[in-house]
Formats: sequence, C-alpha cells, structure tokens
Amino acid sequence: MNDRIAKLKSRLMEANDIALANALLYWDQTTYMPSGGAAARARQSAILSRIAHEKLSDPEIGRLLDELQPYADSLPYDSDVAALIRVTRRKYERVIKVPPAFVAELSSHTAESYQAWTGARPDNDFPRVQPFLEKTLDLSRRYAEFFPGYAHIADPLIDEADFGMTAKTISALFTELRGQLVPIVDSITSGQLADDSCLRLNYPEAGQWAFGIDIIRSLGYDFERGRQDKTHHPFTTKFSLGDVRITTRIHEDDLTSGLFSTMHEAGHAMYEQGISRDYESTPLGEGTSAGVHESQSRLWENVVGRSRRFWEHYYPHLRAAFPAQLGEVSLDAFYRAINRVKRSLIRTDSDEVTYNLHVMLRFDLELALLDGRLAVRDLPDAWRERYKEDLGVAPADDRDGVMQDVHWYSGFIGGSFQGYTLGNILSGQFFEAALRAHPEITAEIGRGQFATLLGWLRDNIYTHGSKFTSAELVQRVTGSPLTIAPYLRYLRGKYDDLYPIP
Amino acid sequence: MNDRIAKLKSRLMEANDIALANALLYWDQTTYMPSGGAAARARQSAILSRIAHEKLSDPEIGRLLDELQPYADSLPYDSDVAALIRVTRRKYERVIKVPPAFVAELSSHTAESYQAWTGARPDNDFPRVQPFLEKTLDLSRRYAEFFPGYAHIADPLIDEADFGMTAKTISALFTELRGQLVPIVDSITSGQLADDSCLRLNYPEAGQWAFGIDIIRSLGYDFERGRQDKTHHPFTTKFSLGDVRITTRIHEDDLTSGLFSTMHEAGHAMYEQGISRDYESTPLGEGTSAGVHESQSRLWENVVGRSRRFWEHYYPHLRAAFPAQLGEVSLDAFYRAINRVKRSLIRTDSDEVTYNLHVMLRFDLELALLDGRLAVRDLPDAWRERYKEDLGVAPADDRDGVMQDVHWYSGFIGGSFQGYTLGNILSGQFFEAALRAHPEITAEIGRGQFATLLGWLRDNIYTHGSKFTSAELVQRVTGSPLTIAPYLRYLRGKYDDLYPIP
Repeated sequence: MNDRIAKLKSRLMEANDIALANALLYWDQTTYMPSGGAAARARQSAILSRIAHEKLSDPEIGRLLDELQPYADSLPYDSDVAALIRVTRRKYERVIKVPPAFVAELSSHTAESYQAWTGARPDNDFPRVQPFLEKTLDLSRRYAEFFPGYAHIADPLIDEADFGMTAKTISALFTELRGQLVPIVDSITSGQLADDSCLRLNYPEAGQWAFGIDIIRSLGYDFERGRQDKTHHPFTTKFSLGDVRITTRIHEDDLTSGLFSTMHEAGHAMYEQGISRDYESTPLGEGTSAGVHESQSRLWENVVGRSRRFWEHYYPHLRAAFPAQLGEVSLDAFYRAINRVKRSLIRTDSDEVTYNLHVMLRFDLELALLDGRLAVRDLPDAWRERYKEDLGVAPADDRDGVMQDVHWYSGFIGGSFQGYTLGNILSGQFFEAALRAHPEITAEIGRGQFATLLGWLRDNIYTHGSKFTSAELVQRVTGSPLTIAPYLRYLRGKYDDLYPIP
Repeated sequence: MNDRIAKLKSRLMEANDIALANALLYWDQTTYMPSGGAAARARQSAILSRIAHEKLSDPEIGRLLDELQPYADSLPYDSDVAALIRVTRRKYERVIKVPPAFVAELSSHTAESYQAWTGARPDNDFPRVQPFLEKTLDLSRRYAEFFPGYAHIADPLIDEADFGMTAKTISALFTELRGQLVPIVDSITSGQLADDSCLRLNYPEAGQWAFGIDIIRSLGYDFERGRQDKTHHPFTTKFSLGDVRITTRIHEDDLTSGLFSTMHEAGHAMYEQGISRDYESTPLGEGTSAGVHESQSRLWENVVGRSRRFWEHYYPHLRAAFPAQLGEVSLDAFYRAINRVKRSLIRTDSDEVTYNLHVMLRFDLELALLDGRLAVRDLPDAWRERYKEDLGVAPADDRDGVMQDVHWYSGFIGGSFQGYTLGNILSGQFFEAALRAHPEITAEIGRGQFATLLGWLRDNIYTHGSKFTSAELVQRVTGSPLTIAPYLRYLRGKYDDLYPIP
C-alpha cells in the first residue's frame, strides 16, 4: 500500500512540478521579461501546460487511485492519505475530461491575450483586445462544455475556483448581500466625503517599498521563502511551498495603492507559506478555494491593515518615514482617509464597503457573457451601464472600465470574480472565530503583534491546504456554514464609528 | 519532404523550448530566488532536463533524419535545410547515447552543488563542497564513458563544447601559446606596475550600473530582446532569440569588475541576438562553439572595450559620471590602469595577457582530475602549486583559489575552460579579418560607433548560428584555420605601446 502511495505521490509531484515551473514563466513574463520574449514565452508556457496536464491525466494515476480507494475508505476522513486520495480523485476526474490540445491552446492564447492587454490598456484601445476576449469567451464556453450536466454554463468554471458553489447559489447569496450593502453605502455616501488628499501627495517609491516590506515582515510573511517584485497587476504565485512570491505596483501619487496591495498579496502568500510541508507538490499543497484564499488576503489587508488598532501602532512609523507629507496629519484623519467610502471606478482601489458592488457586477457580466445574453462587443457599454446603476459613476474610457482588471485577459471568463466577495464574507466570519478563541488579538494588533492571529490562522486554516473543502473548513473553523452576518457586523461596527449609520 | 521538415522542426522546437524554459529556472535561481526555493528548484529543473532530453532523443527524430538524409545530401552544403539535418543529426547521435535518468541525476546534482557553492564560498569552506565536486567528477567521467573510443577521457566533454577539438590538439595549441606568452608576461611584469588605484575608489553601484547599460546599448545590445540583472557569477542566458539576458555583479570598490563583465556578457548576448530568426528553437539557433562564443565576449570586452580608441570617446563620459573619483586622472593614466598586467589570483579580474595562464592551468587540472592523476581532495593544493608555478602567486585561501569559478560547481569537470583561451585566440583572428574588410572600424571605435564592426560580425558569424562548425567558420571568415599569430600580433602591438616589450 505504501508502495502505491509513494508511486502516486511521485507522479503527482512530477505533474505538479512542471506546473510550478510554468508558474515561473508567468511570473517572469509579468515582472522582468523584455517584450521580445513574448512570442516564445507563449509557446513555451503552452508546452509546459500541456505536459503537466498529460502527466496529471495519465491513466496510471486513475489506476493507482482505484487501487488505493478501498484503503482510503478504511481511514478516518481527516487522515492525510484519505484526503490525498479524495482530493486527487476530484482533480483527476476534472483534468481527464479536458483534452491536452485544449490546454495548450488555452495557455498559448492566454499568454498572447495578456500581452495584448498590457499594450492596449495604456492606449485605451478596447478594439485591440476585443478579438482576444472573444476567443477567451469561446474557450471558456468550450471548457464548461467538457463538464455536461450543469444548470448554468458558468457552473463548471465556478466549481473549479470555489468547489461546491454554482451560479444559482452565488447569485442568491449576492442578492442578499447587495440588499444589505446598498443602504449602508447610501447612508455613508450621503454624508460628507472624508478628506483623503493627504494620501495623494508625492510619496517616493523607495520609501513606500521599504515601508511595505517592513509591514509584511511584521505580519509574518517569510522572506526566506518568498520575495516581492514589481508588476502591472499584483498577484501571488508559488514555485514550491518554499518559494511563495508576491508582486505589487507603486504609484508615487498614491500612498495606499502599493501599501494595501502588498498586504493583500502577503495575505495570500502567508496562507500558502503556512501549508503543511508534508503536502509539498501534491494536490493538497495549495489553498482550498478562491474564496478562502481571498478571505486571507482581505483579512490581512482590511480587517487588520485598515483597522484603527493597526495604525495606532504603525502610524508613527509611517509619519516618520514621510514627515513632510504626514507631519500635520492626525491619526484620526489618516484613519478616516484610508477608509474613505466613495462610489468609484477602480475595484482594486475601492473601499471595503463598495468593493463588493464592483465584484458582484463583474460576476453578473460573466454570467451574461457565458450564457449569451451579452456579446463581447457590447461589453464596454454594459460595463458603463452597470457602473452607473450600481455605483452611480461611469468610466470615461475603457482603460478604467472594462480593461481595468487583468482577469479576463489572462484566464477564463467565468469563475474569476466571485471569490473576492466570498472572501470578504469569510474574512468576517473567520476573524470573528479567531477573536472568540483569542480575544487578546485586538490588543496585540494595537502593539504591532500578529503571532497569535497568524498562529490561529495557520493551525486552523493554512496548514490544511486543500485537505478540506471550503464548506468543510468554514464549518470546522467557525462552527457554522458560510453566513454573511459576521461580515455585516464587522462592517457596521467599523463604519458606524467612522460615519454613524442610522 | 516539406511535411517531414515541418514535423522535424516541430519536434525540435518542442524539445528546445522545454530546455529554454529550464534555462529560466536557472536564471531565476541565480538572480532572484529566495533560499527556501532551492530544493524544489533542483527537482523541477531535473524534471525539465529529463523531459527535454526525452523529446530530443525520441526515435521519431532519428527516423525523420534518416528519411530526410538523401534529400539533404542533394542540397548545397550551405543550405539551411542541409545544415539543419547535419547539425541535428550530430546532436541527436550524442543525446541518444545518454540515458534520461543520467540527465535528471546530473541536473539535480548540479542545482544542489551550485547551492552548496554559493553558501560555502563566502565561508571559505572547501570541505563542504568537496563531496559535491567528487560526485561531479564521477558524473563527468560517466558522461564521457557514454562515448567510447576517445583517446583521452576529457575528449567527449571537450568535443561537446568545442566540436572537433581534443585534449591532445588543445594541449599542443596551449603549449605553443604558453611558450609565446610567458616571455611577454615576464617582460611586462619586470618593469614598474601601472598604478590602478584610481579604479579602487568608491564607485556607487547605481552610477556604475547606468554607465554599463549606456555602453552596451551603444555597442548594439538590444534591450527590447534582453535585460541585465545582478548575480554572483555573471553569465549570459537565452529563453528565445527574442530574449537573451545577461547578468553582472558590481563591486563598489572596483570600477572595472562590473563594467568589463557587462561588456563581456553583452558580447555573448549580441552573438545570440544576431542569429537568424529562421533558426529559432532549432539546433541551428545557438552559437556554434564555446570558443567562438568566447571570441565574441572577449572581442567586445577587450579588443574593443580595453582599447585606447574606445576610451578616447568614452572616458570624458566616464569622468563626467564620476568627477570626484576621476577628475584628476588623465586618459593615459586611466588607459594604463585598466590594462595593468599583474600576476594575480582571480581569473575574471585578470588582464588580457595573464588571463590565458589562468585558463590553461584549469584545463590541465581538469585533464588530471578526469584521468585520475589528481584526486578532488588534493585539488586545493594542486591549485596553489600551479598558481605559484605559472603565475608566481598563490591564494591564501580556497575562496580565491579553487572555489573562485562557478564552472565546476554548476556543470561538468572537463570541457569548461578551454573555450576561454580559444576565444582569445579567435578574437584576434576575427578582429584582424574585420579590419581587413573595414579598416575604418578603428576610427569608428574612437567615435563611439560600432555599427560597421557589429554588422560585419553579424553577417559573417552571428547570423549563421551553428550552421558551420567552429573550424568551418574560422576558415570561411578569416581565410585560414585557427592560428595564434593574429592574437599574438594584437597583444604585442597593444602592450608594446603600453610597456615596451624587448
């Protein structure tokens, strides 16, 4: 039996290692690669994707899984081996449905599409990316069709990112959340807008960079097993559990963009760095879902990083780093500024409260594109209309409209956005559970100490990797299924202080 | 026929693309990778090496070559297709002799060995790398044994780097060269040593970096198809003909180390950037031998970069960049300083004249290690003895002795060093041919213009990639076989001016 487990692990490790090597090709493409490298990179990445896929869908893996199933069934559900068989089978059943040629085509297209987007976005040139996006939509649909039996064509794509969720369950959840959020946004934005001009002064890049690095080192991001580099659109990536990297971008006229993106990505990365090393290069060795992953980035970025307690400790340091810019700005004024709620255009720069409105409209647009209610050529207009409707503002151009996010230009349409709002909801639910276990966490954050919080998250969430599904994990960790109540309590509590909500 | 050629090219491209992706793993390992990534990186690199090897040794390639051979025989020797078949066959016949498991073992060992070296060298800890080096020697011998029929066990390793050469032919060549060089070195070093203290002042990294970048851009290195990053031991690497990168290291207390290493690597890179794009991702799409490659790095670094004409143009710029350090230093004094001939310890920092002594002793040590006359444990002492003998100096420790070069810690023992001196010899021979064709090159260098020289090198050497062997290329380009006379003429001409040679 041990021999079979070793054989299975060895095959999984090889497939996974090729996929992880491919991740380095993407990291390089988005950080350091000169433009002349693009064509070959697309080709090389497609080859590695295809080979990783071939290795993972090798029938020998299916045979080993079948042979090991009775043994796995005899083990407790929580055992590592049972989990390995369970999660590998789920992944294997998924990949064998997708032909290798499709994987190569997708990978190659994705690389070209991303390259087109990086060129077209600064030029505000949607027509240049439109054909890429049309092909992406076609590929997304073709992918979904490998998994017949869905209720909505988005379901297979959603299921892959957030196992167990569907267009229907998420739409219901989002409708409920929107119903609660809109009055809060209305209430806050009916009053006077906080003054955040102090954040828009000139903050030299080197100082911002150094401050961000200090912060995430304190949070617990391990630089022996990671690093931060610059990119257009920040992301976290992993080449092994010993090498989990983050990327960010710094705008010198905006203090918060780089800082909070750094904390956000560090949240993702600390999740991956916290996974049990026993799961290295197996399907257990990664975060369990997009939603749970995002709950960690949003927890560290917002619940911790935009809290008053946090800045009670760090604001004096920040002020010392930028005395000319912040010398006259009080902690209260700064705290209000970084939590200004405003109906705005850019998702990644938006506040915690309106953020979900940005996400939910993208989710709806994805469903409409996939099920044919919306054509790609009509997407820019649809985007503007929904922004007008949901946020009361509309972008003057496509650069800050439909071209603002990398997702649709570097992956599928479908399944790409729901995780952000699921993550927000879960960040509230997980943090409440952490506070129940360790009420001292609040005071510790005020002293710049994060070990208790990080330790609790590691022990309860990170270490398990993909051993438990999102639904199982939430139940185990919080004692209840996913629910929006803690998140709303968190938002109400915080913003009631800032902008008394009737 | 065209169908078969397309099939062959497609298979070659796939194998080559995997190898090029693997090169990125190495580039990252030596530039940006955090230490925690090392173990998985070794594993991943071994897997990609093995797969690239499997793809290249696929019997289908052998069949296609056989089928295409009659057609290739009907074509002119110079035709691209004839060359593709010829060079691919040579490569194919070599790789099929090496078992894939050996390739994976070698790759994995190489990564671990490099990692050990980067840790042990600063600690001056040869015993820590000794077991790695012993395994490297064992692997090098085992590799050679895949090619029975050699006269010396180093021959297969030498042949792979410098096709057509053997331990015997190189030893004879080196003996001849040493005989000519030693009196020159003796003569120069018997006089007063040039004062190079002006080069050892504090030169801030940013200024050195920017100046180096400006220089190589002027030489013709294309930053749209490349970039420079920092590393421990500078090297050039390639991920496609559109992405040829160089690396360097800057020492703030040494102006020349970074600057000349940048020009050196740019020479390698311009060679690769100049290869015909038609050869992309085929065996023709790379430099033809270690010696020819090195001839280009040394030509740009030394023949151009350490010439008086070059600095007539650039010295005012350099002085403007570092006025405090060089304001009082004349062009003549600077020129003498960067061409100071000194019996010294470090190959990469040594002058043009003694450089070959460093190389030739390494070549001899490689032969002795491989044929069993020298054990790895005795290597540090043997190193010191040969330095004492050949250069009149001996390192106080192993850090600046046997551990100074990356080669033995990141590849085979054998075939690694001869290319440097072959390159020096060829740089003289090629440059003389270029001057015969375009005598105006000398004056142009004095005006900071390099287009004529680069154009000639591109048209006569670079564009051909591996189409011609080193021997064929030298004959075609210079009208004679490899000969040391032009190189000696160059050295005598230059150093007679600097330090009159009796």
